[in-house]
Amino acid sequence: MAALGLVGGSNVGKAIAVARPGGWKKGLAIMDFILRLGGIAASLGAAATMGTSDQTLPFFTQFFQFEASYDSFTTFQFFVITMALVAGYLVLSLPFSVVAIIRPHAPGPRLFLIILDTVFLTLATASGASAAAIVYLAHNGNQDSNWLAICNQFGDFCAQTSGAVVASFVAVVILVLLVIMSALALRRH
Amino acid sequence: MAALGLVGGSNVGKAIAVARPGGWKKGLAIMDFILRLGGIAASLGAAATMGTSDQTLPFFTQFFQFEASYDSFTTFQFFVITMALVAGYLVLSLPFSVVAIIRPHAPGPRLFLIILDTVFLTLATASGASAAAIVYLAHNGNQDSNWLAICNQFGDFCAQTSGAVVASFVAVVILVLLVIMSALALRRH
Repeated sequence: MAALGLVGGSNVGKAIAVARPGGWKKGLAIMDFILRLGGIAASLGAAATMGTSDQTLPFFTQFFQFEASYDSFTTFQFFVITMALVAGYLVLSLPFSVVAIIRPHAPGPRLFLIILDTVFLTLATASGASAAAIVYLAHNGNQDSNWLAICNQFGDFCAQTSGAVVASFVAVVILVLLVIMSALALRRH
Repeated sequence: MAALGLVGGSNVGKAIAVARPGGWKKGLAIMDFILRLGGIAASLGAAATMGTSDQTLPFFTQFFQFEASYDSFTTFQFFVITMALVAGYLVLSLPFSVVAIIRPHAPGPRLFLIILDTVFLTLATASGASAAAIVYLAHNGNQDSNWLAICNQFGDFCAQTSGAVVASFVAVVILVLLVIMSALALRRH
Protein backbone atom coordinates (compact mmCIF):
# COMPACT_ATOMS: atom_id res chain seq x y z
CA MET A 1 0.00 0.00 0.00
CA ALA A 2 2.87 2.35 0.79
CA ALA A 3 4.58 1.39 -2.46
CA LEU A 4 1.39 2.05 -4.41
CA GLY A 5 1.04 5.40 -2.71
CA LEU A 6 4.60 6.31 -3.69
CA VAL A 7 3.95 5.43 -7.31
CA GLY A 8 0.70 7.34 -7.27
CA GLY A 9 2.39 10.33 -5.69
CA SER A 10 5.27 10.49 -8.15
CA ASN A 11 5.01 12.66 -11.20
CA VAL A 12 5.58 9.81 -13.63
CA GLY A 13 2.40 10.84 -15.31
CA LYS A 14 -1.29 10.68 -14.87
CA ALA A 15 -1.64 7.95 -17.48
CA ILE A 16 0.14 5.40 -15.31
CA ALA A 17 -1.61 6.56 -12.19
CA VAL A 18 -4.97 6.02 -13.82
CA ALA A 19 -3.96 2.77 -15.50
CA ARG A 20 -2.81 0.66 -12.56
CA PRO A 21 -2.41 2.13 -9.08
CA GLY A 22 -4.79 4.37 -7.29
CA GLY A 23 -6.12 0.95 -6.38
CA TRP A 24 -6.46 1.62 -2.68
CA LYS A 25 -7.71 5.13 -3.41
CA LYS A 26 -10.43 3.73 -5.61
CA GLY A 27 -11.23 1.24 -2.87
CA LEU A 28 -11.50 4.08 -0.35
CA ALA A 29 -13.77 6.00 -2.75
CA ILE A 30 -16.07 3.00 -3.18
CA MET A 31 -16.19 2.47 0.58
CA ASP A 32 -16.94 6.18 0.92
CA PHE A 33 -19.94 5.75 -1.37
CA ILE A 34 -21.24 2.72 0.53
CA LEU A 35 -20.78 4.45 3.90
CA ARG A 36 -22.71 7.42 2.56
CA LEU A 37 -25.63 5.13 1.71
CA GLY A 38 -25.48 3.77 5.26
CA GLY A 39 -25.38 7.30 6.64
CA ILE A 40 -28.49 8.24 4.64
CA ALA A 41 -30.33 5.24 6.06
CA ALA A 42 -29.25 6.01 9.63
CA SER A 43 -30.05 9.72 9.53
CA LEU A 44 -33.36 9.26 7.71
CA GLY A 45 -34.26 6.53 10.19
CA ALA A 46 -33.38 8.80 13.10
CA ALA A 47 -35.45 11.69 11.72
CA ALA A 48 -38.42 9.44 10.93
CA THR A 49 -38.37 7.60 14.26
CA MET A 50 -38.19 10.83 16.21
CA GLY A 51 -40.72 12.57 13.99
CA THR A 52 -43.36 9.88 14.48
CA SER A 53 -42.89 9.61 18.25
CA ASP A 54 -46.22 10.42 19.78
CA GLN A 55 -48.00 8.91 22.74
CA THR A 56 -51.30 9.80 24.34
CA LEU A 57 -52.05 8.29 27.72
CA PRO A 58 -55.32 6.39 28.05
CA PHE A 59 -56.48 8.46 31.03
CA PHE A 60 -57.24 12.16 31.24
CA THR A 61 -58.55 14.77 33.63
CA GLN A 62 -61.30 17.27 33.00
CA PHE A 63 -58.89 19.93 31.79
CA PHE A 64 -55.96 18.05 30.43
CA GLN A 65 -55.11 15.10 28.31
CA PHE A 66 -51.64 13.68 28.76
CA GLU A 67 -49.76 13.56 25.51
CA ALA A 68 -46.09 13.49 24.61
CA SER A 69 -44.77 13.95 21.12
CA TYR A 70 -41.51 15.12 19.66
CA ASP A 71 -42.69 18.72 19.43
CA SER A 72 -43.11 18.84 23.20
CA PHE A 73 -39.34 19.32 23.34
CA THR A 74 -37.49 21.99 21.38
CA THR A 75 -34.44 19.75 21.37
CA PHE A 76 -36.34 16.97 19.62
CA GLN A 77 -37.65 19.41 17.00
CA PHE A 78 -34.05 20.48 16.41
CA PHE A 79 -33.13 16.80 16.16
CA VAL A 80 -35.70 16.06 13.45
CA ILE A 81 -34.71 19.12 11.40
CA THR A 82 -30.97 18.46 11.72
CA MET A 83 -31.20 14.77 10.89
CA ALA A 84 -33.31 15.57 7.83
CA LEU A 85 -30.66 18.13 6.80
CA VAL A 86 -27.87 15.60 7.26
CA ALA A 87 -29.75 13.01 5.21
CA GLY A 88 -30.36 15.60 2.49
CA TYR A 89 -26.71 16.59 2.45
CA LEU A 90 -25.60 12.95 2.22
CA VAL A 91 -27.93 12.37 -0.74
CA LEU A 92 -26.58 15.47 -2.49
CA SER A 93 -22.99 14.40 -1.77
CA LEU A 94 -23.41 11.07 -3.61
CA PRO A 95 -22.55 12.54 -7.06
CA PHE A 96 -19.28 13.96 -5.66
CA SER A 97 -18.51 10.56 -4.18
CA VAL A 98 -19.08 9.02 -7.62
CA VAL A 99 -16.67 11.57 -9.14
CA ALA A 100 -14.09 10.50 -6.52
CA ILE A 101 -14.56 6.86 -7.62
CA ILE A 102 -14.11 7.72 -11.30
CA ARG A 103 -11.12 10.01 -10.70
CA PRO A 104 -9.47 8.74 -7.50
CA HIS A 105 -6.56 11.20 -7.80
CA ALA A 106 -8.46 14.46 -8.17
CA PRO A 107 -8.21 16.30 -4.84
CA GLY A 108 -11.07 18.72 -5.63
CA PRO A 109 -14.12 16.57 -4.79
CA ARG A 110 -12.40 15.03 -1.76
CA LEU A 111 -11.56 18.43 -0.35
CA PHE A 112 -15.11 19.63 -0.97
CA LEU A 113 -16.50 16.52 0.72
CA ILE A 114 -14.18 16.57 3.74
CA ILE A 115 -15.03 20.19 4.56
CA LEU A 116 -18.80 19.71 4.27
CA ASP A 117 -18.58 16.34 6.05
CA THR A 118 -16.89 18.04 8.99
CA VAL A 119 -19.59 20.70 9.18
CA PHE A 120 -22.42 18.16 9.02
CA LEU A 121 -20.61 15.90 11.48
CA THR A 122 -20.74 18.78 13.95
CA LEU A 123 -24.42 19.34 13.22
CA ALA A 124 -25.32 15.65 13.60
CA THR A 125 -23.29 15.29 16.80
CA ALA A 126 -24.85 18.38 18.33
CA SER A 127 -28.41 17.20 17.67
CA GLY A 128 -27.72 13.61 18.69
CA ALA A 129 -26.00 14.60 21.93
CA SER A 130 -28.59 17.18 22.96
CA ALA A 131 -31.41 14.72 22.28
CA ALA A 132 -29.49 12.12 24.31
CA ALA A 133 -29.30 14.57 27.23
CA ILE A 134 -33.09 15.02 27.17
CA VAL A 135 -33.71 11.29 26.77
CA TYR A 136 -31.49 10.67 29.78
CA LEU A 137 -33.49 13.18 31.81
CA ALA A 138 -36.74 11.58 30.66
CA HIS A 139 -35.47 8.20 31.84
CA ASN A 140 -33.84 9.24 35.10
CA GLY A 141 -35.16 12.66 36.01
CA ASN A 142 -33.16 14.96 38.23
CA GLN A 143 -33.50 15.21 41.99
CA ASP A 144 -31.95 18.61 42.59
CA SER A 145 -34.05 20.50 40.09
CA ASN A 146 -37.12 18.40 40.85
CA TRP A 147 -37.56 17.17 37.28
CA LEU A 148 -39.33 13.83 37.46
CA ALA A 149 -38.70 10.96 35.08
CA ILE A 150 -41.54 10.73 32.59
CA CYS A 151 -40.64 7.35 31.12
CA ASN A 152 -42.80 5.49 33.62
CA GLN A 153 -45.83 7.10 32.03
CA PHE A 154 -44.61 7.60 28.49
CA GLY A 155 -42.82 4.31 27.93
CA ASP A 156 -43.38 4.00 24.18
CA PHE A 157 -42.40 7.61 23.61
CA CYS A 158 -39.16 7.08 25.51
CA ALA A 159 -38.34 3.89 23.64
CA GLN A 160 -38.91 5.57 20.33
CA THR A 161 -36.82 8.66 21.10
CA SER A 162 -34.02 6.47 22.48
CA GLY A 163 -34.02 4.52 19.24
CA ALA A 164 -33.77 7.72 17.25
CA VAL A 165 -30.79 8.84 19.35
CA VAL A 166 -29.03 5.52 18.72
CA ALA A 167 -29.64 5.88 14.97
CA SER A 168 -28.19 9.39 15.06
CA PHE A 169 -25.04 8.09 16.78
CA VAL A 170 -24.66 5.54 13.99
CA ALA A 171 -24.83 8.44 11.53
CA VAL A 172 -22.19 10.31 13.58
CA VAL A 173 -19.82 7.33 13.55
CA ILE A 174 -20.27 7.02 9.78
CA LEU A 175 -19.50 10.72 9.29
CA VAL A 176 -16.34 10.43 11.43
CA LEU A 177 -15.22 7.49 9.27
CA LEU A 178 -15.95 9.50 6.12
CA VAL A 179 -13.79 12.40 7.32
CA ILE A 180 -10.92 10.11 8.30
CA MET A 181 -11.10 8.22 4.99
CA SER A 182 -11.09 11.45 3.01
CA ALA A 183 -8.04 12.62 4.98
CA LEU A 184 -6.24 9.35 4.18
CA ALA A 185 -7.14 9.67 0.50
CA LEU A 186 -5.96 13.30 0.37
CA ARG A 187 -2.55 12.39 1.74
CA ARG A 188 -0.86 11.39 -1.50
CA HIS A 189 -1.86 11.45 -5.11
CA MET B 1 -1.64 30.49 -3.97
CA ALA B 2 -2.65 27.96 -6.64
CA ALA B 3 0.66 28.52 -8.44
CA LEU B 4 2.63 28.01 -5.23
CA GLY B 5 0.67 24.85 -4.60
CA LEU B 6 1.59 23.55 -8.04
CA VAL B 7 5.28 24.28 -7.47
CA GLY B 8 5.11 22.66 -4.06
CA GLY B 9 3.35 19.63 -5.51
CA SER B 10 5.85 19.04 -8.32
CA ASN B 11 8.73 16.67 -7.86
CA VAL B 12 11.39 19.29 -8.64
CA GLY B 13 13.00 18.34 -5.37
CA LYS B 14 12.57 18.84 -1.69
CA ALA B 15 15.40 21.39 -1.56
CA ILE B 16 13.44 23.94 -3.55
CA ALA B 17 10.24 23.11 -1.77
CA VAL B 18 11.86 23.86 1.59
CA ALA B 19 13.75 26.90 0.33
CA ARG B 20 11.00 29.02 -1.14
CA PRO B 21 7.47 27.75 -1.45
CA GLY B 22 5.45 25.91 1.07
CA GLY B 23 4.90 29.53 2.07
CA TRP B 24 1.17 29.18 2.46
CA LYS B 25 1.59 25.76 4.02
CA LYS B 26 3.89 27.20 6.64
CA GLY B 27 1.37 29.99 7.17
CA LEU B 28 -1.38 27.42 7.67
CA ALA B 29 0.81 25.52 10.14
CA ILE B 30 1.51 28.66 12.17
CA MET B 31 -2.19 29.56 12.18
CA ASP B 32 -2.87 25.96 13.26
CA PHE B 33 -0.55 26.45 16.25
CA ILE B 34 -2.17 29.77 17.24
CA LEU B 35 -5.67 28.31 16.90
CA ARG B 36 -4.64 25.42 19.12
CA LEU B 37 -3.59 27.90 21.81
CA GLY B 38 -7.00 29.57 21.48
CA GLY B 39 -8.69 26.18 21.69
CA ILE B 40 -6.81 25.35 24.89
CA ALA B 41 -7.95 28.64 26.44
CA ALA B 42 -11.56 28.10 25.38
CA SER B 43 -11.82 24.48 26.52
CA LEU B 44 -9.99 25.06 29.80
CA GLY B 45 -12.21 28.10 30.40
CA ALA B 46 -15.30 26.02 29.71
CA ALA B 47 -14.20 23.23 32.06
CA ALA B 48 -13.22 25.66 34.83
CA THR B 49 -16.36 27.78 34.55
CA MET B 50 -18.60 24.74 34.64
CA GLY B 51 -16.54 23.05 37.37
CA THR B 52 -16.80 26.00 39.74
CA SER B 53 -20.51 26.59 39.20
CA ASP B 54 -22.13 26.25 42.59
CA GLN B 55 -24.94 28.18 44.16
CA THR B 56 -26.62 27.78 47.50
CA LEU B 57 -29.85 29.64 48.04
CA PRO B 58 -30.01 31.91 51.13
CA PHE B 59 -33.18 30.25 52.44
CA PHE B 60 -33.76 26.69 53.56
CA THR B 61 -36.39 24.45 55.09
CA GLN B 62 -36.04 22.24 58.07
CA PHE B 63 -35.03 19.24 55.97
CA PHE B 64 -33.50 20.66 52.90
CA GLN B 65 -31.08 23.30 51.76
CA PHE B 66 -31.37 24.37 48.16
CA GLU B 67 -28.14 24.01 46.32
CA ALA B 68 -27.24 23.64 42.66
CA SER B 69 -23.80 22.73 41.44
CA TYR B 70 -22.46 21.12 38.31
CA ASP B 71 -22.56 17.66 39.83
CA SER B 72 -26.32 17.88 40.22
CA PHE B 73 -26.48 17.10 36.52
CA THR B 74 -24.79 14.10 34.92
CA THR B 75 -24.57 16.03 31.67
CA PHE B 76 -22.56 18.80 33.35
CA GLN B 77 -20.18 16.27 34.89
CA PHE B 78 -19.67 14.80 31.43
CA PHE B 79 -19.10 18.34 30.15
CA VAL B 80 -16.33 19.07 32.68
CA ILE B 81 -14.56 15.76 32.01
CA THR B 82 -14.82 16.09 28.23
CA MET B 83 -13.65 19.70 28.12
CA ALA B 84 -10.67 18.83 30.32
CA LEU B 85 -9.88 15.94 27.95
CA VAL B 86 -10.09 18.23 24.92
CA ALA B 87 -7.82 20.79 26.59
CA GLY B 88 -5.36 18.04 27.48
CA TYR B 89 -5.38 16.71 23.93
CA LEU B 90 -4.83 20.19 22.49
CA VAL B 91 -1.82 20.71 24.79
CA LEU B 92 -0.36 17.34 23.77
CA SER B 93 -0.96 18.14 20.09
CA LEU B 94 1.17 21.30 20.22
CA PRO B 95 4.47 19.46 19.53
CA PHE B 96 2.97 17.88 16.39
CA SER B 97 1.81 21.31 15.30
CA VAL B 98 5.39 22.57 15.77
CA VAL B 99 6.65 19.68 13.62
CA ALA B 100 4.16 20.74 10.93
CA ILE B 101 5.59 24.28 11.07
CA ILE B 102 9.18 23.04 10.73
CA ARG B 103 8.37 20.54 7.99
CA PRO B 104 5.33 21.95 6.19
CA HIS B 105 5.41 19.25 3.51
CA ALA B 106 5.47 16.16 5.71
CA PRO B 107 1.99 14.59 5.58
CA GLY B 108 2.52 12.41 8.66
CA PRO B 109 1.88 14.89 11.49
CA ARG B 110 -0.99 16.53 9.60
CA LEU B 111 -2.71 13.21 9.05
CA PHE B 112 -2.22 12.31 12.70
CA LEU B 113 -3.62 15.67 13.77
CA ILE B 114 -6.63 15.68 11.44
CA ILE B 115 -7.77 12.24 12.60
CA LEU B 116 -7.48 13.04 16.31
CA ASP B 117 -8.92 16.53 15.77
CA THR B 118 -12.00 14.94 14.19
CA VAL B 119 -12.46 12.58 17.13
CA PHE B 120 -12.07 15.34 19.71
CA LEU B 121 -14.30 17.63 17.66
CA THR B 122 -17.03 15.03 18.03
CA LEU B 123 -16.38 14.75 21.76
CA ALA B 124 -16.41 18.53 22.31
CA THR B 125 -19.55 19.00 20.20
CA ALA B 126 -21.37 16.22 22.04
CA SER B 127 -20.61 17.66 25.48
CA GLY B 128 -21.30 21.25 24.45
CA ALA B 129 -24.60 20.40 22.79
CA SER B 130 -25.86 18.17 25.60
CA ALA B 131 -24.99 20.83 28.18
CA ALA B 132 -26.76 23.40 26.01
CA ALA B 133 -29.89 21.21 26.01
CA ILE B 134 -29.89 21.13 29.83
CA VAL B 135 -29.14 24.86 30.12
CA TYR B 136 -32.06 25.52 27.79
CA LEU B 137 -34.32 23.41 30.00
CA ALA B 138 -33.06 25.20 33.10
CA HIS B 139 -33.90 28.54 31.52
CA ASN B 140 -37.24 27.67 29.94
CA GLY B 141 -38.47 24.49 31.57
CA ASN B 142 -40.89 22.21 29.75
CA GLN B 143 -44.65 22.36 30.06
CA ASP B 144 -45.57 18.90 28.83
CA SER B 145 -43.26 16.98 31.14
CA ASN B 146 -43.84 19.41 34.02
CA TRP B 147 -40.18 20.34 34.38
CA LEU B 148 -40.04 23.85 35.83
CA ALA B 149 -37.40 26.41 34.94
CA ILE B 150 -34.90 26.70 37.79
CA CYS B 151 -33.12 29.82 36.59
CA ASN B 152 -35.44 32.12 38.51
CA GLN B 153 -34.03 30.67 41.72
CA PHE B 154 -30.53 29.71 40.61
CA GLY B 155 -29.68 32.77 38.53
CA ASP B 156 -25.92 32.76 39.10
CA PHE B 157 -25.68 29.03 38.47
CA CYS B 158 -27.51 29.43 35.16
CA ALA B 159 -25.35 32.34 34.07
CA GLN B 160 -22.19 30.41 34.82
CA THR B 161 -23.25 27.23 33.03
CA SER B 162 -24.44 29.26 30.02
CA GLY B 163 -21.02 30.91 29.87
CA ALA B 164 -19.33 27.52 29.94
CA VAL B 165 -21.51 26.32 27.06
CA VAL B 166 -20.58 29.40 25.01
CA ALA B 167 -16.88 28.75 25.69
CA SER B 168 -17.29 25.13 24.58
CA PHE B 169 -18.87 26.30 21.31
CA VAL B 170 -15.85 28.54 20.73
CA ALA B 171 -13.67 25.44 21.19
CA VAL B 172 -15.88 23.53 18.71
CA VAL B 173 -15.57 26.27 16.07
CA ILE B 174 -11.78 26.27 16.54
CA LEU B 175 -11.63 22.48 16.12
CA VAL B 176 -13.72 22.67 12.93
CA LEU B 177 -11.30 25.29 11.58
CA LEU B 178 -8.34 23.07 12.52
CA VAL B 179 -9.80 20.10 10.63
CA ILE B 180 -10.55 22.21 7.54
CA MET B 181 -7.07 23.79 7.59
CA SER B 182 -5.41 20.38 7.91
CA ALA B 183 -7.47 19.14 4.95
CA LEU B 184 -6.35 22.14 2.87
CA ALA B 185 -2.73 21.55 3.84
CA LEU B 186 -2.93 17.83 3.02
CA ARG B 187 -4.21 18.53 -0.48
CA ARG B 188 -0.84 18.97 -2.22
CA HIS B 189 2.73 18.64 -1.14
